[in-house]
Amino acid sequence: MATAIAHPNIALVKYWGKRDVDLNLPSTSSISVTLDSFQTQTTVRWDSPRDVAWVDGKPATPADAKKIFKHLDLITPGRPTARVITKSNFPVAAGLASSSSAFAALTIAAADAAGERFSPEELSCLARQGSGSACRSLWGGFVEWRRGLLNDGSDSHGLHLAPRDHWDLRIVVAIIDGGQKKMPSTKGMIHTMETSPMYQAWTLSSDRDVSEARHAIMERDLESLGQAMERSTLKMHATMMTADPPIRYWKSTSVWAMDAVEDLRRQGISAWWTMDAGPNVKILCEAEHAEHIAQRLRVLVDEVLVLKIGEGPQRVPDDEEALARFVVR
Amino acid sequence: MATAIAHPNIALVKYWGKRDVDLNLPSTSSISVTLDSFQTQTTVRWDSPRDVAWVDGKPATPADAKKIFKHLDLITPGRPTARVITKSNFPVAAGLASSSSAFAALTIAAADAAGERFSPEELSCLARQGSGSACRSLWGGFVEWRRGLLNDGSDSHGLHLAPRDHWDLRIVVAIIDGGQKKMPSTKGMIHTMETSPMYQAWTLSSDRDVSEARHAIMERDLESLGQAMERSTLKMHATMMTADPPIRYWKSTSVWAMDAVEDLRRQGISAWWTMDAGPNVKILCEAEHAEHIAQRLRVLVDEVLVLKIGEGPQRVPDDEEALARFVVR
Repeated sequence: MATAIAHPNIALVKYWGKRDVDLNLPSTSSISVTLDSFQTQTTVRWDSPRDVAWVDGKPATPADAKKIFKHLDLITPGRPTARVITKSNFPVAAGLASSSSAFAALTIAAADAAGERFSPEELSCLARQGSGSACRSLWGGFVEWRRGLLNDGSDSHGLHLAPRDHWDLRIVVAIIDGGQKKMPSTKGMIHTMETSPMYQAWTLSSDRDVSEARHAIMERDLESLGQAMERSTLKMHATMMTADPPIRYWKSTSVWAMDAVEDLRRQGISAWWTMDAGPNVKILCEAEHAEHIAQRLRVLVDEVLVLKIGEGPQRVPDDEEALARFVVR
Repeated sequence: MATAIAHPNIALVKYWGKRDVDLNLPSTSSISVTLDSFQTQTTVRWDSPRDVAWVDGKPATPADAKKIFKHLDLITPGRPTARVITKSNFPVAAGLASSSSAFAALTIAAADAAGERFSPEELSCLARQGSGSACRSLWGGFVEWRRGLLNDGSDSHGLHLAPRDHWDLRIVVAIIDGGQKKMPSTKGMIHTMETSPMYQAWTLSSDRDVSEARHAIMERDLESLGQAMERSTLKMHATMMTADPPIRYWKSTSVWAMDAVEDLRRQGISAWWTMDAGPNVKILCEAEHAEHIAQRLRVLVDEVLVLKIGEGPQRVPDDEEALARFVVR
């Protein structure tokens, strides 16, 4: 009987590859920034004669329902049957990790509904098991996910580095639809781990990027943060490209956007690009430069968003009107 | 008193990185195809009161002259002063390794002028010391450059795999000028060796590509050859991209051309792309498909060349008219 809102996050230092696939234990630590504006709102109620879930106003697909209720089992073993109502307000094409906000919101709502009092780190460990990146959406601002050392994953969770008001940055998202088929990120990670000769070098070299990015965030040093972010991005995509067969997410417009960002840098604007497991390019910059950068990208890219840094998740009152619409009798 | 012609070559399995910079000993073996149509013609004569060289009708730059006469010293220690007249018939923008044909032709002309009788493998070792890829231009058709094991480099030379008439392939060259500054390849290699965490994985994983490509050439199996070539290309570019700072040769039109080639493959046309240390994309295909592929690329790329596989170098009569024009008194 609880509702929670969580925001997606974007990795500044990347997560790609797992040391334990079942527990979602990563091979590397990572650092993210939580986004504003976009969010997932999720309600969990123990008032349904059988397990049923609605996603964005429609019954969940069997695959999604299975993931949702498996996650509830993890949080509340021996739980009653439940209804779960979840909706996200951002376009799938944005290529933002919707599973990060989805599993963060579901974890908090389920724990609250069960009356469990977990610490944020414990919630982060639980969210991680639904979707790795979700463990970073337990806080706003800047978050580090330490890979951890323990086999049970109890030390592999997010840590809050700095709140949103520590640094007024923007994330400009250039939505580039390459029209290619999506490969689910877990599948892509496993394929990379199994076939790329460069995977090991990626895992061994990532710690430097994490510590430089952490330090840069603390010092509000955008150039150092941007360099660590681009380095981490290029290494992650190098492992994808050298998988066999290769996974190449870069489209021609993605490379055009990288070039545009590098042109802007030569003009003195501190702007830095990153990409995830898709063709979109996300640019980190100071607030004062965001509109100028977005305009530059709109020359070739139809949809360009300017996002602020977001807050952590919130508990909110249940939306009784929505609840009345999604009922199983 | 001799003139030789040699053709440039394109690596199908890539050469990137040196185990000995002075001797141009590579970290990996590589495989190339020699090109038709394009060539360098070079004359060496011992009839000049001082060392002087002309390149493409103009006096050589001091840097080029230094390289040329250092190479003559290597081939003929204690040689007389010389004049060297060399010209290439292909556009610099094609991004073909002009140093491969240049040092192959210079090596042969200088050895002939000195009356030295070297084996092709010995000439290949000498050409290698001028420019690594030149050691593969000592033969036509398909050539393997074995990295070798000896410290003096005497076993690091080309080996003839198959002549041009073994397999009637074409190389379609899409000339994409990204307008970026050129980084000389030796400088790029050293930067990669010193800073990319993925360099070692590249050197360790390349042997598989070499043996698969060699086998595919013998069997005339274009799909296997193409896969090995793309894999080798992606790994080479992965080491460049993960150097610090990164070297990214891919331009948006390069990626567009890759996508076009992959589209054609989905339509049943066996076409495979490669790139070297520049933005151009080179496509390997059967003769019957070359024009169709070139037309497809001309949608976005102004200059697209269709090249045949070429022959080995040749000794030719001296061009007395040219020689009369370039004289030092």
